[in-house]
Amino acid sequence: MIPDSHEDLLTRALYSHFASLRKDGSVQVNPTWHLYEDGVLLFTTSTARGKYHNVRRNPRVAISVNDPDQPYRYLEVRGEITEIRPDTSGAFFDRLAQRYGLPYEPPVADAADRVVLVMRPEHTTTQ
Amino acid sequence: MIPDSHEDLLTRALYSHFASLRKDGSVQVNPTWHLYEDGVLLFTTSTARGKYHNVRRNPRVAISVNDPDQPYRYLEVRGEITEIRPDTSGAFFDRLAQRYGLPYEPPVADAADRVVLVMRPEHTTTQ
Repeated sequence: MIPDSHEDLLTRALYSHFASLRKDGSVQVNPTWHLYEDGVLLFTTSTARGKYHNVRRNPRVAISVNDPDQPYRYLEVRGEITEIRPDTSGAFFDRLAQRYGLPYEPPVADAADRVVLVMRPEHTTTQ
Repeated sequence: MIPDSHEDLLTRALYSHFASLRKDGSVQVNPTWHLYEDGVLLFTTSTARGKYHNVRRNPRVAISVNDPDQPYRYLEVRGEITEIRPDTSGAFFDRLAQRYGLPYEPPVADAADRVVLVMRPEHTTTQ
């Protein structure tokens, strides 16, 4: 599904820009951490965040990641959030925090509210 | 409208990730050039691009820009495309190409189809 030519943009610890739909039908987009594993994209968020409520209402999302070394080189992935898993131990947050080099003392303060968003890729565009 | 603390993310020649709504109601997001001038955000695109058709159907868009030096530091701007101006000379494309350091021979090959999207900021989020 993800073209080999651009898979590095998912496997490197780059921020992706995650777009979702708000209740009023407008779009929201923010940088986020991701992990690409077993053909799906995994994100950490909390039940307190707009992003969580957006994807519960409408699972269709998209991400854009570009290459810091060649910023016109990018990968867009569109797809659906097919599952939302609890992460109340904060273990998944911790994996991502380590991947992205965040200095902190685990578990994360809001572990009780943490969830994992699982995105199934459906379509990509690249340049 | 744009907080002083994050205005540099618009004035530096950083790529923004531009989210718009597709005909089927799903979201699209891609890196793009921008220019922030007189309180509005300006983008170059062409009438051949999905982005152009998306914003003609639904003017509500959002951009996300983060700081390459501190990638968790970001600005999201949500708003509307209030005007679409022709750029058939390619002059606006050329301004952005110079701002972003693209080597090319003006005018751009698809100048006849080039347009400027004018976005009025309505809401921002930052970190």
